[in-house]
Amino acid sequence: MPGVKSLFVPGPTNVPESVRRAMDVPMEDHRAPDLPNFTLPLFADLKKVFKTECGKVFLFPASGTGGWEAALTNTLRLGDKVLASRFGQFSHLWIDMCTRLGLEVELVDCEWGTGVPTEKFREILAADKNHEIKAVLATQNETATGVQSDIAATRRAMDAANHPAMLYVDGVSSIGSVDFRMDEWGVDIAVSGSQKGFMLPAGLCIMAASERAMELSGLDTMHRCYFDFKDMVVTNATGYFPYTPPMTLLRGLRVAVDRLLDEGLDNVFARHNFLAEGVRRAVAAWGLDLCAKGPEWYSDTVTAIMVPEGNDANEVIKHAYNRYGLSLGAGLSVVAGKVFRIGHLGDLNELMLMSALSGAEMAMRDVGIDVVPGSGVAAAQEFYRQNSPKLAMAAE
Amino acid sequence: MPGVKSLFVPGPTNVPESVRRAMDVPMEDHRAPDLPNFTLPLFADLKKVFKTECGKVFLFPASGTGGWEAALTNTLRLGDKVLASRFGQFSHLWIDMCTRLGLEVELVDCEWGTGVPTEKFREILAADKNHEIKAVLATQNETATGVQSDIAATRRAMDAANHPAMLYVDGVSSIGSVDFRMDEWGVDIAVSGSQKGFMLPAGLCIMAASERAMELSGLDTMHRCYFDFKDMVVTNATGYFPYTPPMTLLRGLRVAVDRLLDEGLDNVFARHNFLAEGVRRAVAAWGLDLCAKGPEWYSDTVTAIMVPEGNDANEVIKHAYNRYGLSLGAGLSVVAGKVFRIGHLGDLNELMLMSALSGAEMAMRDVGIDVVPGSGVAAAQEFYRQNSPKLAMAAE
Amino acid sequence: MPGVKSLFVPGPTNVPESVRRAMDVPMEDHRAPDLPNFTLPLFADLKKVFKTECGKVFLFPASGTGGWEAALTNTLRLGDKVLASRFGQFSHLWIDMCTRLGLEVELVDCEWGTGVPTEKFREILAADKNHEIKAVLATQNETATGVQSDIAATRRAMDAANHPAMLYVDGVSSIGSVDFRMDEWGVDIAVSGSQKGFMLPAGLCIMAASERAMELSGLDTMHRCYFDFKDMVVTNATGYFPYTPPMTLLRGLRVAVDRLLDEGLDNVFARHNFLAEGVRRAVAAWGLDLCAKGPEWYSDTVTAIMVPEGNDANEVIKHAYNRYGLSLGAGLSVVAGKVFRIGHLGDLNELMLMSALSGAEMAMRDVGIDVVPGSGVAAAQEFYRQNSPKLAMAAE
Amino acid sequence: MPGVKSLFVPGPTNVPESVRRAMDVPMEDHRAPDLPNFTLPLFADLKKVFKTECGKVFLFPASGTGGWEAALTNTLRLGDKVLASRFGQFSHLWIDMCTRLGLEVELVDCEWGTGVPTEKFREILAADKNHEIKAVLATQNETATGVQSDIAATRRAMDAANHPAMLYVDGVSSIGSVDFRMDEWGVDIAVSGSQKGFMLPAGLCIMAASERAMELSGLDTMHRCYFDFKDMVVTNATGYFPYTPPMTLLRGLRVAVDRLLDEGLDNVFARHNFLAEGVRRAVAAWGLDLCAKGPEWYSDTVTAIMVPEGNDANEVIKHAYNRYGLSLGAGLSVVAGKVFRIGHLGDLNELMLMSALSGAEMAMRDVGIDVVPGSGVAAAQEFYRQNSPKLAMAAE
Repeated sequence: MPGVKSLFVPGPTNVPESVRRAMDVPMEDHRAPDLPNFTLPLFADLKKVFKTECGKVFLFPASGTGGWEAALTNTLRLGDKVLASRFGQFSHLWIDMCTRLGLEVELVDCEWGTGVPTEKFREILAADKNHEIKAVLATQNETATGVQSDIAATRRAMDAANHPAMLYVDGVSSIGSVDFRMDEWGVDIAVSGSQKGFMLPAGLCIMAASERAMELSGLDTMHRCYFDFKDMVVTNATGYFPYTPPMTLLRGLRVAVDRLLDEGLDNVFARHNFLAEGVRRAVAAWGLDLCAKGPEWYSDTVTAIMVPEGNDANEVIKHAYNRYGLSLGAGLSVVAGKVFRIGHLGDLNELMLMSALSGAEMAMRDVGIDVVPGSGVAAAQEFYRQNSPKLAMAAE
Repeated sequence: MPGVKSLFVPGPTNVPESVRRAMDVPMEDHRAPDLPNFTLPLFADLKKVFKTECGKVFLFPASGTGGWEAALTNTLRLGDKVLASRFGQFSHLWIDMCTRLGLEVELVDCEWGTGVPTEKFREILAADKNHEIKAVLATQNETATGVQSDIAATRRAMDAANHPAMLYVDGVSSIGSVDFRMDEWGVDIAVSGSQKGFMLPAGLCIMAASERAMELSGLDTMHRCYFDFKDMVVTNATGYFPYTPPMTLLRGLRVAVDRLLDEGLDNVFARHNFLAEGVRRAVAAWGLDLCAKGPEWYSDTVTAIMVPEGNDANEVIKHAYNRYGLSLGAGLSVVAGKVFRIGHLGDLNELMLMSALSGAEMAMRDVGIDVVPGSGVAAAQEFYRQNSPKLAMAAE
Repeated sequence: MPGVKSLFVPGPTNVPESVRRAMDVPMEDHRAPDLPNFTLPLFADLKKVFKTECGKVFLFPASGTGGWEAALTNTLRLGDKVLASRFGQFSHLWIDMCTRLGLEVELVDCEWGTGVPTEKFREILAADKNHEIKAVLATQNETATGVQSDIAATRRAMDAANHPAMLYVDGVSSIGSVDFRMDEWGVDIAVSGSQKGFMLPAGLCIMAASERAMELSGLDTMHRCYFDFKDMVVTNATGYFPYTPPMTLLRGLRVAVDRLLDEGLDNVFARHNFLAEGVRRAVAAWGLDLCAKGPEWYSDTVTAIMVPEGNDANEVIKHAYNRYGLSLGAGLSVVAGKVFRIGHLGDLNELMLMSALSGAEMAMRDVGIDVVPGSGVAAAQEFYRQNSPKLAMAAE
Repeated sequence: MPGVKSLFVPGPTNVPESVRRAMDVPMEDHRAPDLPNFTLPLFADLKKVFKTECGKVFLFPASGTGGWEAALTNTLRLGDKVLASRFGQFSHLWIDMCTRLGLEVELVDCEWGTGVPTEKFREILAADKNHEIKAVLATQNETATGVQSDIAATRRAMDAANHPAMLYVDGVSSIGSVDFRMDEWGVDIAVSGSQKGFMLPAGLCIMAASERAMELSGLDTMHRCYFDFKDMVVTNATGYFPYTPPMTLLRGLRVAVDRLLDEGLDNVFARHNFLAEGVRRAVAAWGLDLCAKGPEWYSDTVTAIMVPEGNDANEVIKHAYNRYGLSLGAGLSVVAGKVFRIGHLGDLNELMLMSALSGAEMAMRDVGIDVVPGSGVAAAQEFYRQNSPKLAMAAE
């Protein structure tokens, strides 16, 4: 196909040129004497992204899924109980992992399109007088449905219940794109991955653990080795790693973190909100519904769009790819065929989104969904023209 | 600025990933024993792009301007007369070069927005009984005004006048994008550059000369050395060059030519026509005029769009760049401030153009030009949806 | 530092230009409809590298350490016994992992500089009448000491003892560089990584499992999720992955595997042997000893060189890096300070090794080790001149 | 061939990774509003490399040959006389160009292996009472023979003769590698190219002209257009170019100039001298002669080595390339078959040269030249070990 493909899945995201170049390097000795000059400041700056001062940051050669496993196995014992809610494919998978690893799950099933049920959590925790629940799991951004949950509120619910459980957050498709405050929100483990807000290829699990989580990892918790925090902590302290690190990703991560900090995290968040709002205006102009059940659940990193009854969202996706070279995200599991998703996170701007919105319009019309040509694009254009990232955020 | 910039000037064009990677190579010995295995087939395949069997292809480290000079100095004598028409900045510059190099120019000034005046040329040539005119200059695509001229008709006019002058064509922004037939049209020298239809960075003049032109270059024509055909011919025959060639561009050219031939030249031309027509539909939907005075002059590689009286096209361009990261082409000389240009040549597809059209819409509205939001995008969308490259071309 | 650094650690290895370019790509949709056209042939060709027809190949975003864990957790139960020998840092680490994951290790401690004690293994297995030993662990190439073990002989020992234990091989620094025959040698799980013979950056665990290993992974073996074979098998069968794969590494792997198969595995092995022998000739010319205790243990991918008593190998390494930009491998654990290592695996040729040997000579002399200047280089030169990869191998 | 090729021709030189990455960029609008922010400081910094304050720097898309032509055509009239000496293929070619462009050449033929005959020049200039000689041409580094001439002495000779001729210097293979002082030495035009000390691919002519040269370019000098200084001066002043500039090379040039200035020009020169001296020690150890007739002519950027009578240097070169992937420079014209050349300029260090010296040793022995294995390498090693760039230079 001539020209570039348009990548609008909610990860991997478009890698900025500067990050791409930073990764295009010859191999290097990961035990070189001067490596710590590179790694130690990188760890320090990553803490700024997580907004933690006391926490430890970990970089595992793995996907975010590996980070989920690291969180659980380092800090829990076989048979421990966790509290979790399911409202999309990714929250489901983490819960499934808990079960497979031998944990007991206190499960709250929620409607897909909603998020973490903080009030319900508060009730359950308050009722757990013996503190059998050792950890609360929260998916900050459910990528499958375009739903963003309120982690600060989750923490408040836990505090209101006066419950000592740990708080583990899946921030794979949120950290680095929307606000996240590890220390302030009392998050004990936060898991992210390289291929979303960090604007890198997949392959690096980027996560952080609180002092409390680190203490637990020293106790007799689950069997593990690859994802063990302790090995990492010891070698990371000297600027090295217990096994060969993926240096190209680390070199890219350095530039990616610089970009985030140079733009300013708050500006990054405002930009994501601004771009997301334009997409939502487009969807409204199309006369279609979001999968997210209300503004309180709107995700600023991915929008899941319901196709009209009788239409197959997968046809839209397949046609968009084959005819226009546009990659949209598919609906998964319960919402398969019902939604298509536009990822709008990472290194993105208005005109890039115009390709995505145009492509979605054309593909929908091609498969018989009767949206007005140009309507979504026009709505987004006007929003972008009349607002700017900061104003847009303040308006909410 | 986050995200990619949108490049829609009529050259340099977007370099395809495969071409970009082909140029990202360590330096190499340009006198290596095995270099001819690379260069000789490259020259052979370039002849296919020019559609010449007897001509010689030249690759000068230079811009297209250098090719203009090579054409003139290799084949003409000081004081020789050439016939040329001026209808845009680039046809003007070539004429200006003729004068500066000491040639006499029989000049036909045409309205900007029209192209080579073939009937007028026929008359002049018919009247030139003594054959004082040694060469006819024709700009196949006037990049400044988005005007495409009919080279086959130019040749017919010369033949009708039974005139032996040479035919030199500036194909910088046309060859490799719209039809060009060196042998069939009796073109003696054709000049192109790397940064347009060849989808490379600037820096390589790609040109071809007929047998007749080669004969002239052996005579006592103008003083020259760098752009001398003879030095090139001798060393190229063995697969080498008289001075250090720009190997990275040559490595990229190999892949670029492969792309053109793999897609098929006719398909490449049809695609350019198809994409161009969508842009013209957008302009019509905006209620604006093209600089080109009629369909017979429409360029398939660049569209020059007139802003309404009282508006400044340069404001559109500047705003589009500063606010949306979109590079549009400026009006030059006579049409400065009156037009902005969208380049649509090289490695391009529909969704990429949606960024350009959206950006132009937004920028125009921002500076007070009252186009309907989304109107151009919608018109282009519907054209692209309902047509395909081949159908679009057949319809014309 | 001007110029390139010289990388001669035994991994990461030098990435060939073609592989490097293959990884320098924009991100792509890992759920695209046409992805299986890429992934399925890749899996098929990887089986050729492992020389297995019935086995399954796995690609985990992880290091080789992750592969060790995958091997153990998928097929063994808590408390199961494995037979293993320790003769270097990497064999030690795998054994340590067994213990930490809750396995019992029947340990044979061997002198560092020797390898898998096949006769001793035979005895132990023969004595294990109740077949309590479930798996035999063998490190084909102990990277820490430059020792290569005989896996075919290990299999013969198991067969001689008529023991049904599984055979798991750490081939991280051997597969793709020296001969490995999964099916013929009855290997049940083979573990490798991207950053050695596969000539890629670190970040990908490349491993294969036999049908028997696959059957075990379906039983009630250890808790695991990230490294679970079953999830992989199901999604890989359709050309996809259970979580986001590291696409840039996969794109590079495609080219790396093409290189191995195009050169021919036997030629690759012969080349490694040829280059290794030149290095050994250099060491002999220096009058120094190898860490490997005899020719039967010589590794063709890394040579560990003993510095004379009273000298500190770490000084050589540090000085070589700081003064000459040369990365050598350090001695680890028991041999720390006693050896330095030259990695000679992956994409390498004679003249590249001349940099390494020269740098080692200069660094040794600089820190007071009295080798004759140029002596090692001369010995290697003469060997390389008078032999060729195939002859060299046949001579052994 | 596995592994990297070794490039030791005297240009193109090895491009540093940082420069290579800087060129690996998407195309950009060469008329963008913010381009002058990039170009104007680049021009300013290039003046530092030429050591000129009043001169103008020019960047033509061309090779150094184009710069020779620009020098002559901008400042001389048809029939003007220039004084030049011939002592190698490149000084010969510039003289040949003079003749072809219609200039008269007062030629001093010198033995190849010597350089600019300053005393002879003084005599000729002193005798030229009518000042018919308009320009003196001097090749600072004759790449074909490895001879460096003394430009300061050339200026002194001109001053001693009290002659007003211009001084034009071919610094293609010297500027950026060995000392050059445009203002101090009264150089009127200095010509260089991108592919030598500037560590870039070929394709950019980098040159500078004095105020006096600029004045001449405004007079009625030779016909020219592409290489006209005046067009460049006008557009460069605003940060733009008269025709499309090769932006990728300019982006690379920015980083290359930064490297030169960051290392410090004096350190760059000292490093070149240091590395060159090691090569000369190797040649001495081989018992071979340099083409340069004495230390006063030794070039610090390229060494031309005489093979013994009866041997064919081209066999060495061909064999080195085919068997070891080593590119050496060939002897040209008069010295064809008699010398091979090792380029040692640009981004280089000791261990890289060890590959070149080893490869030359092996290739010589393979074709029957009886040098002692390792002898040259050992001599260079010991020199490099016992000296450092600054000490080496001071010692001369």
